[in-house]
Amino acid sequence: MTTVYFEDIKIGDFAEYGKTITEADVLLFSAVSGDNNPVHLNQSYAEQSAFKTRIAHGMLTASLISTVVGTRLPGEGTIYLSQSTRFKAPVQLGETVTARATVAELFPEKKRVRFITECRVGDKVVLEGESLVLAPSRG
Amino acid sequence: MTTVYFEDIKIGDFAEYGKTITEADVLLFSAVSGDNNPVHLNQSYAEQSAFKTRIAHGMLTASLISTVVGTRLPGEGTIYLSQSTRFKAPVQLGETVTARATVAELFPEKKRVRFITECRVGDKVVLEGESLVLAPSRG
Repeated sequence: MTTVYFEDIKIGDFAEYGKTITEADVLLFSAVSGDNNPVHLNQSYAEQSAFKTRIAHGMLTASLISTVVGTRLPGEGTIYLSQSTRFKAPVQLGETVTARATVAELFPEKKRVRFITECRVGDKVVLEGESLVLAPSRG
Repeated sequence: MTTVYFEDIKIGDFAEYGKTITEADVLLFSAVSGDNNPVHLNQSYAEQSAFKTRIAHGMLTASLISTVVGTRLPGEGTIYLSQSTRFKAPVQLGETVTARATVAELFPEKKRVRFITECRVGDKVVLEGESLVLAPSRG
């Protein structure tokens, strides 16, 4: 666990978290969220869908961004204020997603940081958006 | 599982999904997302934080909105395009969250639906935002 204080954060700084999205992740995410849409759970159904195979929940992919800001930059002590996510492409089971948050704007009076956020599978952007957080401060 | 076709959706229609956020949910969400921030997992740490006790991941609460649009309205066949979330208040373990998505705008040429989304604990709004989805169509 890391803490990067507001005073030490610069525009352009970034952090990443990468994870292979396993079948177990998708089953557990369905259990926790209640989202049991068959495109996530039913291979026969999913093969007949536009996606051609089971895909991960979009919000599962999005949760990796929360991991970046909540555990790496700014990390421990961060208060998450908002997140926007645009789902650009599906993530299949077994694919490895890398989430990145890049500092785009700093608000010194409120210790807030705006990040541009992105998740990729290889070179393909599967999710993009923005985060706004309240960073821990030395002050 | 439900499907409500684009042609049958009207502005003001809404659906809900309610769930008690258990300790198990938070542990599993940490495992799936990789977000092991101690404010979610370490009661001693959390008691010293601004939150005074362990809280659920904001994206866990947000995932309940995905459940509403992916399983209830429009439900099966929905393609999730984007989600915005503003985290307004923490959710403690054991609290019951109700997620609601209300149809705010219809785009007939693209079969898209914009929802106003909200999660509450009792009367308190803990999360608010918007969803944009591609709804299944009879056409």
